[in-house]
Amino acid sequence: MGITLEQAEKAVQAAKAKSAEINTLMNIAIVDAGANLVAFARMDGAWLGSLDIAQKKARTARYFDAPTGEIGKLTQPGGPLYNIEHSNGGLITFPGGLPITDASGTVIGAIGVSGSTVENDHIVAQAGVDALA
Amino acid sequence: MGITLEQAEKAVQAAKAKSAEINTLMNIAIVDAGANLVAFARMDGAWLGSLDIAQKKARTARYFDAPTGEIGKLTQPGGPLYNIEHSNGGLITFPGGLPITDASGTVIGAIGVSGSTVENDHIVAQAGVDALA
Amino acid sequence: MGITLEQAEKAVQAAKAKSAEINTLMNIAIVDAGANLVAFARMDGAWLGSLDIAQKKARTARYFDAPTGEIGKLTQPGGPLYNIEHSNGGLITFPGGLPITDASGTVIGAIGVSGSTVENDHIVAQAGVDALA
Amino acid sequence: MGITLEQAEKAVQAAKAKSAEINTLMNIAIVDAGANLVAFARMDGAWLGSLDIAQKKARTARYFDAPTGEIGKLTQPGGPLYNIEHSNGGLITFPGGLPITDASGTVIGAIGVSGSTVENDHIVAQAGVDALA
Repeated sequence: MGITLEQAEKAVQAAKAKSAEINTLMNIAIVDAGANLVAFARMDGAWLGSLDIAQKKARTARYFDAPTGEIGKLTQPGGPLYNIEHSNGGLITFPGGLPITDASGTVIGAIGVSGSTVENDHIVAQAGVDALA
Repeated sequence: MGITLEQAEKAVQAAKAKSAEINTLMNIAIVDAGANLVAFARMDGAWLGSLDIAQKKARTARYFDAPTGEIGKLTQPGGPLYNIEHSNGGLITFPGGLPITDASGTVIGAIGVSGSTVENDHIVAQAGVDALA
Repeated sequence: MGITLEQAEKAVQAAKAKSAEINTLMNIAIVDAGANLVAFARMDGAWLGSLDIAQKKARTARYFDAPTGEIGKLTQPGGPLYNIEHSNGGLITFPGGLPITDASGTVIGAIGVSGSTVENDHIVAQAGVDALA
Repeated sequence: MGITLEQAEKAVQAAKAKSAEINTLMNIAIVDAGANLVAFARMDGAWLGSLDIAQKKARTARYFDAPTGEIGKLTQPGGPLYNIEHSNGGLITFPGGLPITDASGTVIGAIGVSGSTVENDHIVAQAGVDALA
């Protein structure tokens, strides 16, 4: 099913380190190739509401094999995917979710981060992805 | 309740063939006149998130006996059906869902397709409809 | 993600044939290794309520890599898994769901069948499994 | 809200070690005093259906500040809490969920474990609790 727990924990730890480095408090979720949760961490004091958002970002990124922020560009009023967020039990389509690929480019899972600005969420998610590169 | 499984499978196979022809990977769902699922197929490697969207497109098209893309023109901010997507456990109102009618024009079901651009989704859904014409 | 659409459709056709052979009308669902739907068919006149049950049986069988009927033996009042059905958005723990394995014994998906007695549901699910052996 | 991420991760690692020691594959969830998820880990190959059950066990244990198995004794047919599992979006009331207390006896969170027999689930949950004693 793609990503291993060892890889997922490595990504979570890298994301936590980046989060601390930029002085934020994050919820971090990793799903596997089947979009099922593998690992999760909520930093002390991080927003409670981000618990669900981090998981939905990770699932959204895997559901469509794309960064959540890219999907969000298409879901605005008048856009081709307007209100896609109503599907799949709720999607999150702003930045902070990224697919995770193996060396061959196959998607093995995804990371979702929530707890700060979407710019910071994206930076921390990218740190998780980079840890497995 | 309208469409038969034999008809539904014929529409699915036609949609799969069109999808392959235009080099896409689709989720294809057929519902009957009661808006209940009759047949479904997810092509290998198609987006996981489109599994739910294809079914919601088919249901949406039958719920209102209209192409989903036509409904979406009315659900934009300021439009008469703004945020109708919150009803019925989640609707999808961009293209890719089409009603299926019999020779007399009676709606016997609907097809929903998801997995590529909404233009491609619509083309593949139309191929499913045409297979039963 | 395990089972292919080609394999799934083969299992569905075999289940349909067995269902006709024993004079029943079934809903048949196939999920992949990630417990996500791959293929579905509802025979004309089959119970509408079995549409959801067939899918839940398939997911339940994959969730625990076991026949649903075996799980049900443990979920009775006083049993060790009493009321496990409240998890995962609803499980079905009576017969009709079976894991599907490859030649090496790895679970690649599952089949769920609903529409008749649980004995018949199981027989038809087994026919689907056998078609891939 | 009680337990820290550092404590939660310590409990998860202890539970993973005990799980490996007794040759099982577990899903392990930790919630805080607010019954909100703090940390989660799914061991490679652990049942997918246990993902949700581990989290529900942890929440159930915190909701009532009691071991899930003790609650389950009261939820049987004829019992005082019959079918309480219908509340709170689904409870799990068989063993594998335990409250976590601080040195003063105050409940600071809970652990939920799922992936084997309920006896093994309980043993692994206890190992998580003991790691924080």
